[in-house]
Amino acid sequence: MKETDIINYIKKFGIEDEDAAYIKNDEYLCFTTDTLVFSTDVPEEMDLKTVGRKSVLMNLSDLAAMGCKPLLFLCSLNLPRDFSDIKKVIDGIHSACKEYNMKYAGGDVNEGELSISGFAVGKSKRILRRNAAKEDDLVCITGDLGRVYCYFKEAKRDIFKEKVFNPVPRIKEGQILSSYANACIDISDGASKELNLISELSNVKIELETLPIHPSVIEISKEKAFDYALNSGEEFELIFTIPKKYKNVIEKVNATVVGRVKSGEGVFYKGKKIEKKGWEHLC
Amino acid sequence: MKETDIINYIKKFGIEDEDAAYIKNDEYLCFTTDTLVFSTDVPEEMDLKTVGRKSVLMNLSDLAAMGCKPLLFLCSLNLPRDFSDIKKVIDGIHSACKEYNMKYAGGDVNEGELSISGFAVGKSKRILRRNAAKEDDLVCITGDLGRVYCYFKEAKRDIFKEKVFNPVPRIKEGQILSSYANACIDISDGASKELNLISELSNVKIELETLPIHPSVIEISKEKAFDYALNSGEEFELIFTIPKKYKNVIEKVNATVVGRVKSGEGVFYKGKKIEKKGWEHLC
Repeated sequence: MKETDIINYIKKFGIEDEDAAYIKNDEYLCFTTDTLVFSTDVPEEMDLKTVGRKSVLMNLSDLAAMGCKPLLFLCSLNLPRDFSDIKKVIDGIHSACKEYNMKYAGGDVNEGELSISGFAVGKSKRILRRNAAKEDDLVCITGDLGRVYCYFKEAKRDIFKEKVFNPVPRIKEGQILSSYANACIDISDGASKELNLISELSNVKIELETLPIHPSVIEISKEKAFDYALNSGEEFELIFTIPKKYKNVIEKVNATVVGRVKSGEGVFYKGKKIEKKGWEHLC
Repeated sequence: MKETDIINYIKKFGIEDEDAAYIKNDEYLCFTTDTLVFSTDVPEEMDLKTVGRKSVLMNLSDLAAMGCKPLLFLCSLNLPRDFSDIKKVIDGIHSACKEYNMKYAGGDVNEGELSISGFAVGKSKRILRRNAAKEDDLVCITGDLGRVYCYFKEAKRDIFKEKVFNPVPRIKEGQILSSYANACIDISDGASKELNLISELSNVKIELETLPIHPSVIEISKEKAFDYALNSGEEFELIFTIPKKYKNVIEKVNATVVGRVKSGEGVFYKGKKIEKKGWEHLC
């Protein structure tokens, strides 16, 4: 069973985006979970402190996409019996929590294959969702794309490594966008998949015109650069849709306008349908 | 590194019980995580729906120990590539959430060794903690102890199996106790370990006088029954300390008075020190 099929099965129980939140007196508390599995998610040359940090950054990116200020982080550590370096992992978790002003509140320890399941809590006055894109919105992406894909497929250059080892969750940007944007999602599995998710959940068509491809990605991958950028996972940039009148907000969060929301369905680039390629677990 | 050492290392960052909570207008939101790892936590004869249910019940028991009403459940599912029966697990998760009136809000899916990391959110007007036992409190335990140990060590009888396959998290009891008890903990790793935790964290001595041993445990294990009950993990009963004047509350939650809180340190039974035996991960 593919990840998408599993998620669709879970959704049959009536689960929607807004369910992982609790509202109290005009303030939303939002909850998210994201797991880092060493065997599939961690490159060999990544040190354990960076691994710990990354387990936090992944969850922060989810909070950013909801427009949240981070509050609290818990995690379940699964460790093999002979694993001796857990202190480095914990130091990394603690350092990332401190950097983003989020309380590290402990969690659970188990014996098992090495993995870190993070759980983050954030708050917001207005939650950004994936199902709220509106016709005529501009589609925008923060930062740049493609370096993660190049690190794994092309070369271990420092400029690529930086984005894999120390991604920057767009926390500040998400908080700004929470007052203006309509839909938002972070790029975990690749822009092609995330754009299709916004399109499906919002019942709109997205016409893609460009992508913010990093120059070093163009240099190394040449004519494949657009495909690389489109399908590069764990970029942790935000894709958002926003009314045209907020062009100043788009500048404020250093985002690139990449397309437009239209009535209809599907994601298109120069008339061609963009399929959900990206990265899918359990394919 | 042992589980306790890991937890002590995490605590160096100043983490206390009350940190996994967020207070807003006199209401605490509490957060907890507990992971079920198939290779170590799941008996061979347990069906997958029960496995899904149990991953929820474990987390509910943590909420019960904090005196919380359950609100929301998220989980990270780690699955091997060839695992086809995930629907049964999800059905079990959904069924337990529904039974305890807790919203199942989805989560994350990954490739990896089979495990379910649950995250639960609950609320309470007053949180029960492990570090708040007071001198002269009565020490009490809900339900009965020892059946889980007997299931794994003695016999697969139905009376033992029931407690392993369908433990009852003491949600109602926890909510009642939240207005009266001082300290509270649920029995995950065995009463000997949990009693020692209350003693250490509250800086008190606990004098144990008895234990609520299930009759079938006495029948099968004879003179070892007390030891079995003391070290039986995943019982999911509550140990709490409460002022003597609340004897009616103890009756209301069907608990047994098992001892008294004194000044001093350690846990003692008939003058003999009770060590933290119980179940420890990664020993």
